[in-house]
Amino acid sequence: MYSTLKQRVLEANLKLPKYGLVTFTWGNVSEIDRELGVLAIKPSGVEYDQMTADDIVVVDLDGNVVEGSLNPSSDTDTHIEIYKAFPGIGGVVHTHSRSATIWAQAGIDIPALGTTHADYFYGDIPCTRKLSHDEIAGAYEKNTGLVIIEEFAIRKIDPMAVPSVIVAGHAPFSWGKNAGDAVHNAVVLEEVSAMALATRSLNSGIKIQPELSDKHYLRKHGENAYYGQR
Amino acid sequence: MYSTLKQRVLEANLKLPKYGLVTFTWGNVSEIDRELGVLAIKPSGVEYDQMTADDIVVVDLDGNVVEGSLNPSSDTDTHIEIYKAFPGIGGVVHTHSRSATIWAQAGIDIPALGTTHADYFYGDIPCTRKLSHDEIAGAYEKNTGLVIIEEFAIRKIDPMAVPSVIVAGHAPFSWGKNAGDAVHNAVVLEEVSAMALATRSLNSGIKIQPELSDKHYLRKHGENAYYGQR
Amino acid sequence: MYSTLKQRVLEANLKLPKYGLVTFTWGNVSEIDRELGVLAIKPSGVEYDQMTADDIVVVDLDGNVVEGSLNPSSDTDTHIEIYKAFPGIGGVVHTHSRSATIWAQAGIDIPALGTTHADYFYGDIPCTRKLSHDEIAGAYEKNTGLVIIEEFAIRKIDPMAVPSVIVAGHAPFSWGKNAGDAVHNAVVLEEVSAMALATRSLNSGIKIQPELSDKHYLRKHGENAYYGQR
Amino acid sequence: MYSTLKQRVLEANLKLPKYGLVTFTWGNVSEIDRELGVLAIKPSGVEYDQMTADDIVVVDLDGNVVEGSLNPSSDTDTHIEIYKAFPGIGGVVHTHSRSATIWAQAGIDIPALGTTHADYFYGDIPCTRKLSHDEIAGAYEKNTGLVIIEEFAIRKIDPMAVPSVIVAGHAPFSWGKNAGDAVHNAVVLEEVSAMALATRSLNSGIKIQPELSDKHYLRKHGENAYYGQR
Repeated sequence: MYSTLKQRVLEANLKLPKYGLVTFTWGNVSEIDRELGVLAIKPSGVEYDQMTADDIVVVDLDGNVVEGSLNPSSDTDTHIEIYKAFPGIGGVVHTHSRSATIWAQAGIDIPALGTTHADYFYGDIPCTRKLSHDEIAGAYEKNTGLVIIEEFAIRKIDPMAVPSVIVAGHAPFSWGKNAGDAVHNAVVLEEVSAMALATRSLNSGIKIQPELSDKHYLRKHGENAYYGQR
Repeated sequence: MYSTLKQRVLEANLKLPKYGLVTFTWGNVSEIDRELGVLAIKPSGVEYDQMTADDIVVVDLDGNVVEGSLNPSSDTDTHIEIYKAFPGIGGVVHTHSRSATIWAQAGIDIPALGTTHADYFYGDIPCTRKLSHDEIAGAYEKNTGLVIIEEFAIRKIDPMAVPSVIVAGHAPFSWGKNAGDAVHNAVVLEEVSAMALATRSLNSGIKIQPELSDKHYLRKHGENAYYGQR
Repeated sequence: MYSTLKQRVLEANLKLPKYGLVTFTWGNVSEIDRELGVLAIKPSGVEYDQMTADDIVVVDLDGNVVEGSLNPSSDTDTHIEIYKAFPGIGGVVHTHSRSATIWAQAGIDIPALGTTHADYFYGDIPCTRKLSHDEIAGAYEKNTGLVIIEEFAIRKIDPMAVPSVIVAGHAPFSWGKNAGDAVHNAVVLEEVSAMALATRSLNSGIKIQPELSDKHYLRKHGENAYYGQR
Repeated sequence: MYSTLKQRVLEANLKLPKYGLVTFTWGNVSEIDRELGVLAIKPSGVEYDQMTADDIVVVDLDGNVVEGSLNPSSDTDTHIEIYKAFPGIGGVVHTHSRSATIWAQAGIDIPALGTTHADYFYGDIPCTRKLSHDEIAGAYEKNTGLVIIEEFAIRKIDPMAVPSVIVAGHAPFSWGKNAGDAVHNAVVLEEVSAMALATRSLNSGIKIQPELSDKHYLRKHGENAYYGQR
């Protein structure tokens, strides 16, 4: 019943080592089927080179396993909260990719500094506030999702226009219209994170011109887009 | 009619992933046939590992498609302006290669700091001024080309002696006597950009000796060159 | 008699080049059989791509060769001291992996800055004091082990909770429940060392929240762990 | 007559791309036969993946081609001066490897900061003075060799104990007992150069303890060495 979904999620997970976004098992991708009310996600702690579609775990939006014999990713509850709050998205990915994690550890938003960033992210990529002691001691993974959502709500950021976040002291999450698109955005996030590190060290006060950000984002997204084959 | 040109442009485009200059589809190479008044260029948004010579698009110098069923690169109008202004060149390449893009985002010329640079670039590699609001809102890609040309004209830089530029807030363009040569220069640009980042962090005021720059550039270029097999 | 042990040690050593932790022969992995009172270790100065299980040297805890025709690693005495002092461990690895060595050369503890670190290391990774002139002139490799042990004792660090150390002016050692686990920890050490370098350059005063470090370490280790398949 | 020598030089040159020390054709290795009074060296500007032993050029110590139909490396005269001045060496290599070139461009000695360095280099790796205007305008490649030799003479550095140099504003040269050994040292030079860059940015005043440098150098070199299989 979920074989196509599981196959898609497997393939998206295998792109993480392909693009150099993960060490060992440090990453997980999921995709939701909103009609069926389930998401498929990587099992916890399983090596990528041994993973098959049968290992992918299907859970409902309360986190109950619907299909699969392995434990789902320990980050499953974070994925669920993101899906609940951001109805336009279909895939979520979590990694500890090096450069994005560096910004997360530093607790600093990833600034929009050029068109590479603007082609995918409409403005700075936010860093969440730190979780409180109680949020960490309680339902930690769920609360990680809630802190992400809070950050987008308070700053009035459209999650479709900025499809990534970094969690303070932790690492990035990205999303997209499906699992493959979420991984695509995670690759871009890592590249713009690396570029931003060195750009700021050369010129600490630099920002992209707002009109250049508009131009590049809108030539790839929305009804007047003209990039690619349409 | 254009099959040889298209094959050459395909092969030059495939060197971009080979040399690590591109992520996904972020780059494009073209070559001009000045007798026929056309250029062949990568199609917009097509993956490198699926691209064939048939996908390469041939356009005239007004940007009209002469052969090919796909949309040409969205940067085609920038290429066209560069070909019109710099009659000695035969190939143009645009990438978002990491280190060169870092300098572009910082809005700082890439300084000539050693013989690696001097072997290919006779002096600093210029960073353009920012485009104005109107230039961005109007014919943006064409205006990007015009700002590049303006920079070389104002500073009296010979584009044959400095075959690359970085566009402020954006990324590099390189050129050469044909498509393959343009890519060769783009590889060198990325390497000297990376070296310059760390050199300046070790010694912020350093510059190459002008006579050493002369020596290395002229032992590889011009009538007294003696590098290579001649 | 030691063929299984030697095979395991061979495989763990071959992971060093696989994960990019070594240049040439600069690294060595050992595993102890505490019942038999011997450890198997890489021979000194032998290339990884030519090494077979027969080349692995078995020594007793006084450093005498029990089996094998080659000289054991010149660092064998350091391994022996670590095994003697830390009874819970079964494997030891020494490398000159780039980022961890940078921290060792700088003589600075690798600070805990995020959950990537906290998933494996419960607190900062200590840098030893410098060895004295006499310690260097005497039984240098043995004294390197003793300085490592002294550092954990003085700071009251549990070697099972912080399975790596950096030796001032030298390089890292890591350990684990067996040879493969030690190499796994050495890979993580290198990654968190690289992340910490850039994090501190972005935000020089940052530290991980202690409660976040607790949460991540304890969700993977100890009786209440819930990461992975159990 | 020179076929063995040429084959050895070919193989040593092919290690340059294998170890990531060169972009395009930017590097050259030679080996001398002191009895015959000739050296074999890479031809100028030839791609590594097309090079055969027949392409290797044999020259005498005045730079005259003795065997081979191609032009020898444009840096041949630098190699010759080094061989003449340093009678204990048998191979020389020149690259523009990234991190060593960064130190050369910065015009700063590569400091001895740890045992990785001390295992191969007995003290700092010197950066030459700049060449004068006349030295550049004249026999530039020969003068590059003379400036290297001058630096070792003035500082009383033994070239066997410090088998590399960086030329100010240019790039490194390394040497060894034969061509393969010279390339081995060039790989180490690149690694210690990269480590030193980041070490100094973490701790700007750090140096290795002299007694630790002695210990590591002397456990691998000289009559009391005990590293490796002997």
